[in-house]
Amino acid sequence: MEHTLIINSILTIEKTALEAWHNGNPSKFLELYSKNYTYFDPIQELRIDGKEKIKQLYDSYEGKMEIMDSFEMINPKVQISEKIAVLTYNLHSFLGDKIIKENCTEIYKLEDDDEWRIIHSHWSLTQFFHK
Amino acid sequence: MEHTLIINSILTIEKTALEAWHNGNPSKFLELYSKNYTYFDPIQELRIDGKEKIKQLYDSYEGKMEIMDSFEMINPKVQISEKIAVLTYNLHSFLGDKIIKENCTEIYKLEDDDEWRIIHSHWSLTQFFHK
Repeated sequence: MEHTLIINSILTIEKTALEAWHNGNPSKFLELYSKNYTYFDPIQELRIDGKEKIKQLYDSYEGKMEIMDSFEMINPKVQISEKIAVLTYNLHSFLGDKIIKENCTEIYKLEDDDEWRIIHSHWSLTQFFHK
Repeated sequence: MEHTLIINSILTIEKTALEAWHNGNPSKFLELYSKNYTYFDPIQELRIDGKEKIKQLYDSYEGKMEIMDSFEMINPKVQISEKIAVLTYNLHSFLGDKIIKENCTEIYKLEDDDEWRIIHSHWSLTQFFHK
C-alpha cells in the first residue's frame, strides 16, 4: 500500500473512533486495540497492559462519559515503517467554554489478518506546567 | 537478531541515556534521535518535529538541569515488530524527598546503518488527576 493511502486509512480510522469517544462511546477505540495492547493516560498510576484490562476500564466509563461539543485533531503526522504507523497529534476537545488539550500517540500495526490495530496509546495533558 | 537480544540492547541504550540525563547531560538522548524525530513532553504547547528543533530545546537546558539522586525504570516492556521496538515504562526520579513520576514511550527503529534510533518520544506526568 502506498504511504498516502496508509496515512489516509489511519486518519479515517482514528477520526471515526474519536467521534464515537466524544459522543460518549468508547467501543470504537476498543475494537481497534490489539490483543497485546499497552496504554498510558493521565489518570492511571501505572501502564495498563492487555486488551482485557483496558476493556474493564472502558466498561467502568459506561454511561459516565461527558458528551463533548466537538474536537480538533491538530497537525496529525504519520511515521510509517513497514507494518507500523506511528500517528501523533495534538487534540483539542470542546465543551461549552472549556477546552481540554492533549498530546496523543497511537501506534498502529498491520496485523496478520491485514487489519490495522493499535498496539500502544499514550494520552497526556498538553502544557501542564503553564496551566 | 533474536527478540531477547533486541530487548536487552534497547534497555541498555535507554538506561545509558537516562543516567546521563539524570546527571544533567541531555547529549546521550540527542545522539539517539533520528533525523525525523517527533517529541511530546508536559511543557510544550505542540509536538516538536525534527532533530534540529529538539537540539535547540536541549541546548537551552544546558547548565540548568537539576542533577537527580537516582531513578527507577518501572516494569519496562518492549513490543517488537520487524525493525520497530516500542519501549514503554514508568519512570520515578528521586531528588531528596521529591519524586517525579512519568509515563514514557520511546519508539526505536533499526535504521539503514544498522543502528537503533528513536523516531518518537512521549513523556508525561503520571496520575496527574490524583496530585
